[in-house]
Amino acid sequence: MRKVSRTIWVAALLFCCISVSVAAEHKPRARDLGVPFDGNPGPLNAITDVKGVEVGHTTLISGEGALKVGVGPVRTGVTAILPRGKNSRDAVFAGYFSLNGNGEMTGAHWVEDSGFLDGPVMITNTHSVGVVRDAVIRWKVKRGDADAEGYWWSLPVVAETWDGDLNDINGFHVTAEDAIHALDSAHAGPVEEGNVGGGTGMICNEFKGGVGTSSRTLSTKDGGYTVGVLVQCNYGEREQLRIAGINVGREIPAQKIWKEDTGSIIVVVATDAPLIPTQLKRMARRVTLGLGRDGSYSGNGSGDLFIAFSTANPGAIGPKGLHPITMMPNDELNPLFLATVQATEEAVVNAMVAAETMTGINNHKVIALPHDQLRAILKKYNRLVH
Amino acid sequence: MRKVSRTIWVAALLFCCISVSVAAEHKPRARDLGVPFDGNPGPLNAITDVKGVEVGHTTLISGEGALKVGVGPVRTGVTAILPRGKNSRDAVFAGYFSLNGNGEMTGAHWVEDSGFLDGPVMITNTHSVGVVRDAVIRWKVKRGDADAEGYWWSLPVVAETWDGDLNDINGFHVTAEDAIHALDSAHAGPVEEGNVGGGTGMICNEFKGGVGTSSRTLSTKDGGYTVGVLVQCNYGEREQLRIAGINVGREIPAQKIWKEDTGSIIVVVATDAPLIPTQLKRMARRVTLGLGRDGSYSGNGSGDLFIAFSTANPGAIGPKGLHPITMMPNDELNPLFLATVQATEEAVVNAMVAAETMTGINNHKVIALPHDQLRAILKKYNRLVH
Amino acid sequence: MRKVSRTIWVAALLFCCISVSVAAEHKPRARDLGVPFDGNPGPLNAITDVKGVEVGHTTLISGEGALKVGVGPVRTGVTAILPRGKNSRDAVFAGYFSLNGNGEMTGAHWVEDSGFLDGPVMITNTHSVGVVRDAVIRWKVKRGDADAEGYWWSLPVVAETWDGDLNDINGFHVTAEDAIHALDSAHAGPVEEGNVGGGTGMICNEFKGGVGTSSRTLSTKDGGYTVGVLVQCNYGEREQLRIAGINVGREIPAQKIWKEDTGSIIVVVATDAPLIPTQLKRMARRVTLGLGRDGSYSGNGSGDLFIAFSTANPGAIGPKGLHPITMMPNDELNPLFLATVQATEEAVVNAMVAAETMTGINNHKVIALPHDQLRAILKKYNRLVH
Amino acid sequence: MRKVSRTIWVAALLFCCISVSVAAEHKPRARDLGVPFDGNPGPLNAITDVKGVEVGHTTLISGEGALKVGVGPVRTGVTAILPRGKNSRDAVFAGYFSLNGNGEMTGAHWVEDSGFLDGPVMITNTHSVGVVRDAVIRWKVKRGDADAEGYWWSLPVVAETWDGDLNDINGFHVTAEDAIHALDSAHAGPVEEGNVGGGTGMICNEFKGGVGTSSRTLSTKDGGYTVGVLVQCNYGEREQLRIAGINVGREIPAQKIWKEDTGSIIVVVATDAPLIPTQLKRMARRVTLGLGRDGSYSGNGSGDLFIAFSTANPGAIGPKGLHPITMMPNDELNPLFLATVQATEEAVVNAMVAAETMTGINNHKVIALPHDQLRAILKKYNRLVH
Repeated sequence: MRKVSRTIWVAALLFCCISVSVAAEHKPRARDLGVPFDGNPGPLNAITDVKGVEVGHTTLISGEGALKVGVGPVRTGVTAILPRGKNSRDAVFAGYFSLNGNGEMTGAHWVEDSGFLDGPVMITNTHSVGVVRDAVIRWKVKRGDADAEGYWWSLPVVAETWDGDLNDINGFHVTAEDAIHALDSAHAGPVEEGNVGGGTGMICNEFKGGVGTSSRTLSTKDGGYTVGVLVQCNYGEREQLRIAGINVGREIPAQKIWKEDTGSIIVVVATDAPLIPTQLKRMARRVTLGLGRDGSYSGNGSGDLFIAFSTANPGAIGPKGLHPITMMPNDELNPLFLATVQATEEAVVNAMVAAETMTGINNHKVIALPHDQLRAILKKYNRLVH
Repeated sequence: MRKVSRTIWVAALLFCCISVSVAAEHKPRARDLGVPFDGNPGPLNAITDVKGVEVGHTTLISGEGALKVGVGPVRTGVTAILPRGKNSRDAVFAGYFSLNGNGEMTGAHWVEDSGFLDGPVMITNTHSVGVVRDAVIRWKVKRGDADAEGYWWSLPVVAETWDGDLNDINGFHVTAEDAIHALDSAHAGPVEEGNVGGGTGMICNEFKGGVGTSSRTLSTKDGGYTVGVLVQCNYGEREQLRIAGINVGREIPAQKIWKEDTGSIIVVVATDAPLIPTQLKRMARRVTLGLGRDGSYSGNGSGDLFIAFSTANPGAIGPKGLHPITMMPNDELNPLFLATVQATEEAVVNAMVAAETMTGINNHKVIALPHDQLRAILKKYNRLVH
Repeated sequence: MRKVSRTIWVAALLFCCISVSVAAEHKPRARDLGVPFDGNPGPLNAITDVKGVEVGHTTLISGEGALKVGVGPVRTGVTAILPRGKNSRDAVFAGYFSLNGNGEMTGAHWVEDSGFLDGPVMITNTHSVGVVRDAVIRWKVKRGDADAEGYWWSLPVVAETWDGDLNDINGFHVTAEDAIHALDSAHAGPVEEGNVGGGTGMICNEFKGGVGTSSRTLSTKDGGYTVGVLVQCNYGEREQLRIAGINVGREIPAQKIWKEDTGSIIVVVATDAPLIPTQLKRMARRVTLGLGRDGSYSGNGSGDLFIAFSTANPGAIGPKGLHPITMMPNDELNPLFLATVQATEEAVVNAMVAAETMTGINNHKVIALPHDQLRAILKKYNRLVH
Repeated sequence: MRKVSRTIWVAALLFCCISVSVAAEHKPRARDLGVPFDGNPGPLNAITDVKGVEVGHTTLISGEGALKVGVGPVRTGVTAILPRGKNSRDAVFAGYFSLNGNGEMTGAHWVEDSGFLDGPVMITNTHSVGVVRDAVIRWKVKRGDADAEGYWWSLPVVAETWDGDLNDINGFHVTAEDAIHALDSAHAGPVEEGNVGGGTGMICNEFKGGVGTSSRTLSTKDGGYTVGVLVQCNYGEREQLRIAGINVGREIPAQKIWKEDTGSIIVVVATDAPLIPTQLKRMARRVTLGLGRDGSYSGNGSGDLFIAFSTANPGAIGPKGLHPITMMPNDELNPLFLATVQATEEAVVNAMVAAETMTGINNHKVIALPHDQLRAILKKYNRLVH
């Protein structure tokens, strides 16, 4: 199976590359559909608007039909977010928040106490967190980050959401190589959204979900900083979905899946504003307010875990000796807090807009958010921008 | 000054009583204005729909014109929420959450570790937390709760928001008697909203704010429980205010006050569902999602502190010996989480709808949310229910 | 009663001043008795070895015999710790930790989220936290810290332990003036220990307790920083008390009081090392390890709350604009962590050594730790230094 | 290498089994050496004194000489603690605490929010957490715990300490089979200590460390409950080590390793007392006080993570419908808190007493705590029991 998977995956990747280049022209995002959002996005409206941030995906799609555990069908993957890019070995200040802990984000204990994120943030499916975690260490070892005697350790940050409704999750199809590929293929520029990377088999508000991203740039008066958000969106109940404040979900009753909120959402917030860990933790907590705008009530089964980091203050983690740091005053954080809320709100909608209808294990089919219906509903409520 | 204040306050109270009895017929709430909300409210659409909960207010309004610290004008008060009513000495399971800690909620350390709220929740202005806190102990001592030798202590829960824009907050006008009056006058039934109690001088989204409440009742299938919410609403920026998902604030630009979110919100969540402390903490955290629906981004200056308690499991705190407890399974919490989000969303709007235009120190005037404009805006977006 | 109390208190204060000047020669501290401790204390072996830190006490002792609530006997007080001295209006970076939350430390929510301690740390008895809290605001207002229009608020940090075994705690004898006196009389130099300030009526390991302090200075290689600790010591069970690792308590069975750990301990840690809030929180957490050395098991009834601050980075809180900060690398924190543990261990013993036998309400008598027996026990275990 | 490793490991296991049966007669524990401890241990003085708890180890020892990454030498393993035994599918109430987060404990977010530990606690080396984590899911899948359609997920609890000073940690020698073997071989009865399981290559206070365990039984008056502790001990600085309150480490200066505290300690606390999650979290926090008695200052590099669970209240996690729970009153927790402190203090010493001198990668040799010297030092301080 492995080999087949590889072959198909390479094909998928090639296809993906092509579709991306085409996408620049054709694949609409939420704003393109006339959905109104507040605030000013950066040039890419993506987490990569924060200079240095790179994102890579490994997408695994193969097989169809009845579930045969260990064989497939496979609908999963890995996403890597590298705060300073894959060639940097510097850490970033960071903070995290757990809105609902029914999920995994390894490495969080040390983010909390050290105030640093030292390495990438990886996102995959629930049952592949372990392989991806150890693979990040392999990747570091391969790059020679450990000292000669091996006196060195690592506590990678790996998060997850559950794709077992479409993917043979108990088949453990993600490999160390898949994780390393996501790291090695990370890049600046536009971020692929929808059915890619860790988001491949995800479901959001009972529509096909996956990866979404958005950004905000602050005015010069507010410091001119950028806030970028990336979500792996797998949470929500159709009935509660709000887009632009309108209960869109309620007006598209077709092909619902769950009886209640089942799923999770991982949110990564990046900024170039010089925030210390205490401030980044507060920023991570604001993600909740963005999800509130989208109608989330964070169900019991949801693993809603958020991490925020700042690319400012390079070199803060070392070497020995006192470190000069630059810090925003707490009194000036409001525009960053608001930007976090706004970019989260939009990234979730972007994930649904980008994702495409998918059929997975046992022919489970999850429909994409129908763009035309979305527009019609927004128009009905006088909320369509164009 | 004290005496004058007392006199005026008594007058205000009489007036208040009259207005309340009239209000039952005349004073509209958000639903009466045609604002759409999700879920089914209880009979009173108030925190007192949770059986046993009592609420009392002391409202202090006196003086006008230029601020003379220590003299007035006075626009403040105290609100008391008693989970099992003023005659009970039993505690309740509880949990709290701090969305943004720029505020005070005394007693929280022990709520966190004991899992109990043992006494009332009091809400007042920022600079009167101390006097109210010690007054709760006086009230308990007076009732003879300490044992004969005085081997007894208390850690009252007192929260606050800042009313210094309308009130002579540095004049410290709240007295121990005011706090005790709020406790002694607590009652079941309809809860006075708007410019009353701790909410007297508060401002919400740059409209006059104050106390608001709402409730939800679950279906029989979901256990038939009730969730009640009471807010002391003093947060927010007009520009961000959303009502029923519509950016109402942006369309009422008149008489704005702040440049950014300045203020706070205290939220008390009550339920009769048998939740243990771990579960109540999670419920308190969901308040954030309700505020997200109303457009909050929880500004740096905001003290956004929430407490949730359950009136189930009477006697859980004692006496000696093992206690039988009843507990909801985590898997069945979703309807309670959703009810918390919905009731929070509505309580905030109720606070603004109930509050009336007020002029305070230095003739600062804060306008009420104009009901007609609210209706017109909702109509424009096809969101008006009736 | 108030007047009498004042008179007696002034007398007590005069006596206190005299006793302090004498104390420099005569009153032994733990080291003077030959108790071995690790590490190098600063010149004063006190929290005031951290430059800038000032400590003030108001000690209230009056009456004797049977308890008459509201009349006395009175055995209580207030202690003020000012991180940068009473004339500074600058804040310090800070972090707190609650080992057991059966106690109060107001203002902690904002310390947690802002990363700053803006004002003094006050310590008093459990039932006087409120009056002291509001008094700190009065003190600030009096100094003109609020702006002209009163747009200003404060969230004072006030902690407590319970002295109701010796003091008429439900008589509420501490006044706003007492709190302000502690602030105004704060000074650098030696810190009065034992039955003074907030520690006046406290009991520690069933011996008379109260205020204790200690400090450590780091080697030049480790940065030459100072760590100072001040405790208000009211926790513990005689049976568990360890001094210098020896179960001293078990060998002095006379005149025990409790059946189990009843009480609390507040610990304030100061340093001039440039730590950011995340690091100070970790430092506060280490206090637990020092208490472990003294035999604490942190009983259910204990309010064990710790706060740590750094006097480095003056001006970090403002004004507007980016702030340059200096930060220790995490890799170099070990000497500071160890110093915190060591100074905590010693400060607790200093509190007991300094405290003197006291008789309070209802002729309750609590004996001081007998110095000669302490020496004899340490000698028996070959632990006496001199 | 894999095969060789397997062969050697089987050999090691056989040897291990033999040595265990012998150990009952010959291998001394700390008490056997005359080290004094407080409190009454259970029959086994082990975590397995808590009925239902089972412990299994996989010990991997192979190769010697120079480190060749991926080949060896190998000195590592996996330890599995099953709260209700390997045949149970029921969960237990649980709580965790991070004293210092420089370590990993996966699954902690959901322990925190759900209040349950649903599955085993696994402990291994830092770089094998991932493989062990996913293996726990494989083990569950194999047992058929997922439902027919695969609608099921798992968030295993896996913790670690770093053995890279003796073990080829970057060679990733732990396999899924090793983890499953630890689970499948778990048993009640005596627990192997020292160089076994996850503790195989660990170092404690610069002596050979590893696995240690201890227990306490409460008097009938206090409920007759049992508290058991198991540690994977890899923390500490020789200079700070205290045994029975005596600075033993300082008097055995030979063959020290570190310049400062480098390492970690994972502590698992089990009890049959009916505690709810809030109470178990407090219990986990008390572990710190036990480590304080042993001289720990929790260095920056230490991952000090603790989890406590209760085997009372079977069935609390489900099925649907209200659950009757039994709960200890907070007022009666003191004996359990004290037992936790005492058993932690002893388990750490037991780990060092049981561990044997080991030579690992690059011929690094770590000596065992010399039993005779330990006795001599305790005797010098009149602390030897027999």
